[in-house]
Amino acid sequence: MIVVSGPSGAGKGTVCSALLDICPELVLSVSKTTREPRTGEQDGVNYFFVTQAEFEQALFEQDFLEYACVYGQYYGTPRSTVEKMLTTGCDVILEIDTQGAIQVKESRVEGVFVFLLPPSGAELRTRIKNRGTESLENLQRRLAAAAQEVALASEYDYIVVNDRVEDARDRILAIIQAEKLRTGRNRELIQTISEEVKA
Amino acid sequence: MIVVSGPSGAGKGTVCSALLDICPELVLSVSKTTREPRTGEQDGVNYFFVTQAEFEQALFEQDFLEYACVYGQYYGTPRSTVEKMLTTGCDVILEIDTQGAIQVKESRVEGVFVFLLPPSGAELRTRIKNRGTESLENLQRRLAAAAQEVALASEYDYIVVNDRVEDARDRILAIIQAEKLRTGRNRELIQTISEEVKA
Repeated sequence: MIVVSGPSGAGKGTVCSALLDICPELVLSVSKTTREPRTGEQDGVNYFFVTQAEFEQALFEQDFLEYACVYGQYYGTPRSTVEKMLTTGCDVILEIDTQGAIQVKESRVEGVFVFLLPPSGAELRTRIKNRGTESLENLQRRLAAAAQEVALASEYDYIVVNDRVEDARDRILAIIQAEKLRTGRNRELIQTISEEVKA
Repeated sequence: MIVVSGPSGAGKGTVCSALLDICPELVLSVSKTTREPRTGEQDGVNYFFVTQAEFEQALFEQDFLEYACVYGQYYGTPRSTVEKMLTTGCDVILEIDTQGAIQVKESRVEGVFVFLLPPSGAELRTRIKNRGTESLENLQRRLAAAAQEVALASEYDYIVVNDRVEDARDRILAIIQAEKLRTGRNRELIQTISEEVKA
């Protein structure tokens, strides 16, 4: 499981799309939400659209790796769905905000945590400014929040700068490839070859 | 510093050459030895050829990350040379046997330890057999040693199977790229961007 997180404006969505475009063995985790589908959104593709009662049932069963309530609507990553995808041998990407990533980390599910950074603080400020047509007060609150989010980067395993989407994508691919080569994930192979040599 | 190690017959030399061929920022660590240069070998390229007294002086000064005596001749990796190369911003590759790698690990120099495995035990047996024109007894001793060496793989950071040289090379490149993205190596960047966002 690969968790791609970072402050808003870092480009999580774009980079994850680029990853999925060239990696057939990667799948994006689909969240559950209580909000209404927007035009063009498909159930099971963009989100699993559920009722408040269904969401609460899943919460009760502790079936969320992370969840959040945003403007009165619930969003969450279902643990059972992620685990099912992992057993099929796929690598699952979770594209989530920093609050969600902290929850996933605390859930102790094995995962690789990647923090996506903008190329500079100035660039992040520009991206955040260009996003909203907000009041100055709102904007300053969002910038302060972004600064706090960037500081959380030190809790992650890897730091990937999103200067060009293709470069950020390739960095994450290298991380995925390298993580699969970690000794802890290859103990059986060592055992097998060691026995074959003796035989 | 990247330590590439593994049992004899794993193909360390070939894979390291392939790495150096396509990576200008990689340099191979050059060992000191007391043995005579063979035809075509250049001082400072293949080895630093030194006298017994010079080698002992370096030993006395604890200037070896690892050393060994093979058939009465000394071989060692000079710590000062490696450190000098690292300060120029190069990535230094150490291509060493498993005994040497253990010594380097114990020296507590920061490094990434890659264990190169043959694709199968049978393949390793074949490679070892094809190497020498040895007695059966010698061969069996070498196979037993190889099996012990493979078991040491669990002490390394990464396991790379050398099925095709180009694939093994690319796996090590991915490891090098990913290791540079590790959070511990990017704390300054996080700090800088965090401050820029606030500014």
